Parts: sequence; structure tokens; C-alpha cells
Amino acid sequence: MAKPLEFWFEFASPYSYLSAMRIETLAAEANVPLILRPFLLGPIFAAQGWADSPFNIYPAKGVYLWQDMAREAEAAGLAFQKPTDFPRGSLLATRIVTANAAEPWALAFSRAVFAANFAQDRAVDQPEVIAELLDALGLDGQALIARAADPSVKEELRQQTKAAQAQGLFGAPSFTVNGTLFWGNDRLERALEHAKSFA
Amino acid sequence: MAKPLEFWFEFASPYSYLSAMRIETLAAEANVPLILRPFLLGPIFAAQGWADSPFNIYPAKGVYLWQDMAREAEAAGLAFQKPTDFPRGSLLATRIVTANAAEPWALAFSRAVFAANFAQDRAVDQPEVIAELLDALGLDGQALIARAADPSVKEELRQQTKAAQAQGLFGAPSFTVNGTLFWGNDRLERALEHAKSFA
Repeated sequence: MAKPLEFWFEFASPYSYLSAMRIETLAAEANVPLILRPFLLGPIFAAQGWADSPFNIYPAKGVYLWQDMAREAEAAGLAFQKPTDFPRGSLLATRIVTANAAEPWALAFSRAVFAANFAQDRAVDQPEVIAELLDALGLDGQALIARAADPSVKEELRQQTKAAQAQGLFGAPSFTVNGTLFWGNDRLERALEHAKSFA
Repeated sequence: MAKPLEFWFEFASPYSYLSAMRIETLAAEANVPLILRPFLLGPIFAAQGWADSPFNIYPAKGVYLWQDMAREAEAAGLAFQKPTDFPRGSLLATRIVTANAAEPWALAFSRAVFAANFAQDRAVDQPEVIAELLDALGLDGQALIARAADPSVKEELRQQTKAAQAQGLFGAPSFTVNGTLFWGNDRLERALEHAKSFA
């Protein structure tokens, strides 16, 4: 049987948006179970000596990023605009998915957050925006936001981010299959092939 | 008519190896003229504050690089082994291609250098190895090495590396088409599509 694909994503990461929008379909086609692993890049970048996104620290990389993102989004048929605030704070959305990663709506909510940030330039760091996105899925936004502030959720996210680091993750999106790491939206197909190879 | 594809590569760059081995066939199939732009990443990394390859500076990135390279090389049907010396000095080979970029043998020589470094772990920073690779192509290795030391060649390479920086290059391989930048072996197909779109 295929091994599960663990999808490590950060809501502020542009290329995580590209993967989030296509991973459910691809995993279903490949018959590969999906496990959501939202995490925070901040602590991982800090451990590499970066206090900001490398796309902001290294200007040439940053200029290129937005050109490449526009092209890749267009090729994937996705709406895209450069967020006016980058990287936009991802803590609240990440905590909500962490607390609900196994819920059937977790990936749909994640896609809604990514699209709000990278296609509509909405302030997904604000609770009222997150509440609206949850409500639109027929959920109780206020209640889920309140629950996401629970110390157990904060601790779970800290552990998830530590686990990311322990597995050698250094960027997002990343995919792990049975402990093997794949980095970047460009490697999603390769990661799925690897997951299927255990069948 | 298709615009030419400019291929910016660094002999010490692992992913440049992957592109160098397939670019001639792909460009010919796409009917896209190819221009070789060998350059040095050292000055470009130095301008970003890096005194070494980022794969050495950031250990997690380095660990991943060699796993990813092994997988990508296998998928491309290419021999690969991690060089015992990384990044291996690329100055001599780069000067030779700079001085002979329009020669019909320039890309074949480049492929030979990449394969020697990344498949056979040979010391391509040594003149005797470079001479042997040139001789094997029916060329006069000694004469070409002597000519590569000419001040005009050194100056041409300095200008090429400056041109890379001026065009926003920050890594290798890169491809430019009519001033538009594409970065990484994963974007070679996209760059060729763009070149063809001018037809």
C-alpha cells in the first residue's frame, strides 16, 4: 500500500500556495493518503540566521520570486497577485489547521487562506478575515478561533515546527514520505511517485 | 522567429550539470538558438554576503541537495556522485568556454567538464585534467589553456559575471530570453517555451 504523503506548508509561503491548490486532486489520483503538517518557517529561518524571509533579505531572489510566481500561477490556472504585506503573519491560520488537521475541511480552509492571501491580497493575519473564511465553509469561525488559542494547540504547533527541523526541513512547501524529504512545489510529483512506490 | 536562449552556468553548480547534459537536445527540438554564458557564482554569492556555497553555509540545504541531485540525476539517466571537493574551482574551465563560447565544441567540452566533476569526481580545477578533456575532443589542450590565461579573456569573464549580476541572476543554472530570467534546471522547459513564443 502507498505510504502517506506528509504536506509541510507555511501560510506565508508563495510556493506553498501553488502546492495547496493542487495537492488534494493529485494525491487522490495517485491513491496516496495525505497528512497535513502546517508549520512555521520563522523559527527555522531564525536558526539559519535570517530574521526575515530570504526573499526580502536577498533582493535579487525577491525580484525573481514574484515574476516566477506570476508565471507558475498562470500556468496552473490560478489567480495571483503579490501581497502588499509579505510575509503576512500566519500564526492564527496555522494554529487553526494544527488543531484540526484531520478534519475533512482542513485542506479546504487552507486553500481559502492561501487564495485570500495570494490571489485577493486580504489580511489573513486578522481574526475577522479568518472568521469569515471559516464561516463561509459552514463552520463556527469564532469558536474555532477561540479554541486555537488553547495552550495545547500552541504546544502542538511548537512540536510540529520542531519535528520539521528534526526532519531536515529548511523551506516550504516540503513533502516527506516515510522519512524521505522533497522540497518545493516542483517536487510534488516526485514525492507522490515515491509514496506510490511502496505499493 | 524564436528568440535565443542564453544559458548561464557555473561549472561548480550541481544543477548546472543537469541542465548542461540536456539543453542541446531540448533547444534543437524546440528550434531555439542557444548562447553559452559561463560565469562565476563566487562574486555573486559574495555580494549576497556568502563566502562559500550556500549548500555549505546552510547544512540542511546541503544535506538535501545531494539527496535531490542523486534522485534527479537518476531520473534523467545520468551518472552522479557527490564530489569529494565542493565547490570545486571552476575558473580555468570557465575561462576556456568564455574564450570559445561560439565554437561548435564549446558545449561538448562543458558537458565533459560537468561529467568529470559530478559523475567521476575528477579534479577539474587542475590543468592536466582540463587538457585531457580537451585533447579527447580532438583539440589542442595545451594551446587552449595557454590562450585562456590571456588578459582579454579574464576581462571578458569579469564582464560576463557583471552582466549576470546586472540581469538579476543570483544562482545557477539560469536562463534568459530577451531579458526575462528563469532560474534553475526545473525552469528550462519554461524558458524554452518563452523563447518559442516569439516565433
